[in-house]
Amino acid sequence: MVQHLYEIRMYEIPMASDEAALTGWLRRAAHIPSHSQLVRGIGDDCAIFRPKNSPEDLLFTTDLLIEDVHFTGRDYSPAQAGRKALARSLSDIAAMGGEPRFCLVSLAVTEQAFGQNRSRWVPAFFRGLLKLAEETGTILAGGDLSHARKVVCDVMVAGAVPRGQALRRDGARSGDEIYVSGRLGGSALGLSTRRGKAWRCHLRPEPRLALGRFARQKLRATAAIDLSDGLSLDLRRLALESRLAAEISLPPRFAGATAEQALHGGEDYELLFTVPPRTRVPAGFEGLAITRIGAMRSGKTGQVLLDGKPLRAAGYDHFNRAW
Amino acid sequence: MVQHLYEIRMYEIPMASDEAALTGWLRRAAHIPSHSQLVRGIGDDCAIFRPKNSPEDLLFTTDLLIEDVHFTGRDYSPAQAGRKALARSLSDIAAMGGEPRFCLVSLAVTEQAFGQNRSRWVPAFFRGLLKLAEETGTILAGGDLSHARKVVCDVMVAGAVPRGQALRRDGARSGDEIYVSGRLGGSALGLSTRRGKAWRCHLRPEPRLALGRFARQKLRATAAIDLSDGLSLDLRRLALESRLAAEISLPPRFAGATAEQALHGGEDYELLFTVPPRTRVPAGFEGLAITRIGAMRSGKTGQVLLDGKPLRAAGYDHFNRAW
Repeated sequence: MVQHLYEIRMYEIPMASDEAALTGWLRRAAHIPSHSQLVRGIGDDCAIFRPKNSPEDLLFTTDLLIEDVHFTGRDYSPAQAGRKALARSLSDIAAMGGEPRFCLVSLAVTEQAFGQNRSRWVPAFFRGLLKLAEETGTILAGGDLSHARKVVCDVMVAGAVPRGQALRRDGARSGDEIYVSGRLGGSALGLSTRRGKAWRCHLRPEPRLALGRFARQKLRATAAIDLSDGLSLDLRRLALESRLAAEISLPPRFAGATAEQALHGGEDYELLFTVPPRTRVPAGFEGLAITRIGAMRSGKTGQVLLDGKPLRAAGYDHFNRAW
Repeated sequence: MVQHLYEIRMYEIPMASDEAALTGWLRRAAHIPSHSQLVRGIGDDCAIFRPKNSPEDLLFTTDLLIEDVHFTGRDYSPAQAGRKALARSLSDIAAMGGEPRFCLVSLAVTEQAFGQNRSRWVPAFFRGLLKLAEETGTILAGGDLSHARKVVCDVMVAGAVPRGQALRRDGARSGDEIYVSGRLGGSALGLSTRRGKAWRCHLRPEPRLALGRFARQKLRATAAIDLSDGLSLDLRRLALESRLAAEISLPPRFAGATAEQALHGGEDYELLFTVPPRTRVPAGFEGLAITRIGAMRSGKTGQVLLDGKPLRAAGYDHFNRAW
């Protein structure tokens, strides 16, 4: 899901006015009573629910994958679409340092979309999804099936973390150092060239589950977010929730990606996390680079400075237009 | 959601062949390891998850509401669509005897769908949804927003029941008596006439949450299901899961509804439950009729007999064609 979408993606829905008022209203309307078992609602990668007497908190996230918005039937095999539908939600679980437990899959398909192959599309879609589910220990627990003009899929994933240990967006403190995994801009580059490693990177994102748990357990990360909509926008979200500003320099770039793609391109699904100053962070984790790109600062809440100059938060919009 | 959809609704998805093979495959592929915290997966109204050390089991269900499949912009106000999107999932929680806790709402909207009113549609949709959420104690915990050619909404609801107490579909025993709430066929009648009480009944279904809890706590119901796709199909589902047959007579009919509408019409969202023989069941609960319509029998698994003759399971298909 990416809970924050209520706050941010509302801007992308074409509306005549009052987006900020609407999103603020939704978050207020979804007010969580103080006695609630819901520890965290709208405003993070996952909602956090605390079962009675349990040593674990549960994480919940849901993400839409829509034909001709998030994928095209021309570019994606059904198995790739199924895999990516699940990967998007797993990435939210990774960002909270969680371990996935089960998923619910709602899928609406259309006769036209599959032409002569309609008897094969749905099983192939689930085969791709279930392969990733098995790799990550996520059990398919149910869902809903229907029909629509375009393929629409919504995947809800439930995960778990030790009680009170979820990596949230609002935990960063001034002075905390900012790290990102991998090299950014690969997915945006792939979308523009439609070939090579970058294109595979776009078609087949890897949820950083092991890294998320490592950041939570070993690095004692203070906050985290997954880079689904672009560094500039996602870091702004984390900074907004933590009521801080962020100062960064250029992040490591995917080979061939422009600075623009690395800063604003979406769907890299790498993790961004913050750690207390002087935390010893290894340069890599399981073959994945981990790079310090800056630090959190007091300042204008939500502002991201790149080499000292304000960086516009252009992630999702930019990316969206590419479709 | 209605987890069983994998088993049954697959039949409604136009496919060249092998529906049964596909659905069987999905349930096998989603095999639940014996040590899993997932107590129940595909095959019931909700998935059941057992948090570590908790006195409560958690219930999870998700349901799609798609424009021109489940509702039309001509017939439904945005608030009615929002309310119904949530009501459908709450009805699954009711069927398990649960208490709703929170929901995630994924919503894709389109510019065209709302014409000049696009700035009002989304807030009005959420206002309808949130009103029912407040009435039922369901907190909006997050979701996802995107765009699509038609409005698509997927609502996941999480609920809770005391550990091991959820009303499942597979708990009925031979000799158990079958009861239904309310009078059936109203929603199908409303859909055909588009007026009066029946139409309001179709536009504004009421999840039977209090009745579900009453059936679980006070009546010690052995099994339950909500009537979302028609009595003939839903009772068949319960009978299949319980590995029994069912013998019924005509259920109570909504004023003006035909026997066909009462037996096969969908979207009444009343509850059907089974209780041990000679259980004292009141004739009504909070103004809602409760009527004995038959009993579970050993016999051909999944078969429903109406006055001794096999009843075809025509619920959803029949209803679906009405759109």
